[in-house]
Amino acid sequence: MELTFLGTGSGVPSKQRNVSSLALQMHQERDEIWLFDCGEATQHQILQTTIKPRKITKIFITHIHGDHIFGLPGLLSSRSFQDGNTTLEIYGPKGVQEFVESALTLSETRLRYPIHYQELHEGVIFEDEHIRVKSMQLVHGVPSYGFVIEEANQIGPLLPDRLKSLGIKPGPIYEQIKANEVVTLNDGTTINRDDVTGPMIPGRKIAILGDTLPYDRTIDFIRNSNVLVHEATFIDEDADLASDYNHSTNTQAVKIADEAQVKHVLLNHISSRYLRQDLENELDTLKQIHPSVNYVYDFDTFQIQKEG
Amino acid sequence: MELTFLGTGSGVPSKQRNVSSLALQMHQERDEIWLFDCGEATQHQILQTTIKPRKITKIFITHIHGDHIFGLPGLLSSRSFQDGNTTLEIYGPKGVQEFVESALTLSETRLRYPIHYQELHEGVIFEDEHIRVKSMQLVHGVPSYGFVIEEANQIGPLLPDRLKSLGIKPGPIYEQIKANEVVTLNDGTTINRDDVTGPMIPGRKIAILGDTLPYDRTIDFIRNSNVLVHEATFIDEDADLASDYNHSTNTQAVKIADEAQVKHVLLNHISSRYLRQDLENELDTLKQIHPSVNYVYDFDTFQIQKEG
Ligand SMILES: [Zn+2]
Ligand SMILES: [Zn+2]
Repeated sequence: MELTFLGTGSGVPSKQRNVSSLALQMHQERDEIWLFDCGEATQHQILQTTIKPRKITKIFITHIHGDHIFGLPGLLSSRSFQDGNTTLEIYGPKGVQEFVESALTLSETRLRYPIHYQELHEGVIFEDEHIRVKSMQLVHGVPSYGFVIEEANQIGPLLPDRLKSLGIKPGPIYEQIKANEVVTLNDGTTINRDDVTGPMIPGRKIAILGDTLPYDRTIDFIRNSNVLVHEATFIDEDADLASDYNHSTNTQAVKIADEAQVKHVLLNHISSRYLRQDLENELDTLKQIHPSVNYVYDFDTFQIQKEG
Repeated sequence: MELTFLGTGSGVPSKQRNVSSLALQMHQERDEIWLFDCGEATQHQILQTTIKPRKITKIFITHIHGDHIFGLPGLLSSRSFQDGNTTLEIYGPKGVQEFVESALTLSETRLRYPIHYQELHEGVIFEDEHIRVKSMQLVHGVPSYGFVIEEANQIGPLLPDRLKSLGIKPGPIYEQIKANEVVTLNDGTTINRDDVTGPMIPGRKIAILGDTLPYDRTIDFIRNSNVLVHEATFIDEDADLASDYNHSTNTQAVKIADEAQVKHVLLNHISSRYLRQDLENELDTLKQIHPSVNYVYDFDTFQIQKEG
């Protein structure tokens, strides 16, 4: 699993940062890419990466502000033009479906694939045997959502020594043992998987929040995430602006990350008023609150490691 | 007057060419910029130029396909964010107003300036003492329009020798003579402007056409233009594709330019299937039809010179 930041700016595009979009690439896990927000020119940013629009199977929209949705009609058209023909799921608050359908209808754009829309609510919005996505409403003037993506725990590795001591030689039987809680061998002996595997590998948890004021209720929601993507539109010095515009400061974001004991914090949705150096100057102070905090820039990628 | 090509591609953006947009900059003439079409990421292209969105006073939309309009909501928002507060006129076919209003309403975008919409019809769509814009419907499956921008003719330069022979010395009287057909001096003599000025300077004529099949009726419309911007989505070898998709080939475009006796032909809306070299290879043949023909590329600029 890998996060690729396609747009890390706020409100309007600048030469340095495009408006919001973030790709979660899961090539090994499920050969799919999920997109979070789709500001204008997200498809143009994608042209600079190895991402193929037809691999995008789900798009999650945090809220309906233009800097998070104006890239949808173009990306959807290009996905069709570039041989995308599998169903696309769009999860978003009320208004996203109407926006997309109105743009596609008025422009007489016909797609080669169906779109399924799911209007956001709090709770589980997607779940299969490998992964679960939950959403929660934040505080941003308009309905804005955060998401956590939780991988199922995985069976620990087979322990060769244990298997050997039970007289089991490497072969197809290994896969059978891994796939079943109990396996009965030809000679009648039963093997309990727990006896021959190491400890469960905990699934990863990724938290991606939309624009928001700092909000206590997120702490439980994002608790123990491997990585948290939190907006930090303003620096602490401009806390008044943050509050006026329903945004967070860097310090506010990092405090929440600390209380929720997340492993890594990535700050995005950065106002174009700050130069790179201004942000770097903030890091010392921020790291005193949470040791693993970083600002992200367009095209940064972040590998999400498994623990244990 | 200067044309700046912001997007010269066709259908979907590529690394080389963005989707359609073209700016007519008239800094000396009226301190305004007019935009023709506004594909996605037009505002991003503008960031790479000296164009200020607040100087854009009119946007002309040729037709409602996505590659010509999906950049409107973002550009309009950014114009507001970047201190644009003067009325913006949008001229476009049916559907443009609904597209823009739907996008701005659903995204809760509030602009600091009013937009006036004018639905396109054939004939004069704008006129003041300096300039006139006419539009004409083309052939592209959906209603697609072409525009000619015609500058009024200008009074020729004052002829100092003639003025001297009439005993008129340089001074504020010069401006008066230039501004009026007849001026009566203090001593009762009358000066006819025609007697003391050189020949009329013909106004420039610029023709900018939307996507279209080659169309005979355009010839009269664009006749004698200083510059013609014509789509050439395909090369002549792919004439079947051009006809299937309601587009023109390079040869078709240049033949029309030749018949209409336009001075310069600029070919845009180029399919991403062609490499730069493919296009350069076409030029020898095209120049046999019209000596001043060129392919344009993103960020190319073209000065429109006055004649005489
Ligand atoms: Zn935002
Ligand atoms: Zn087009």
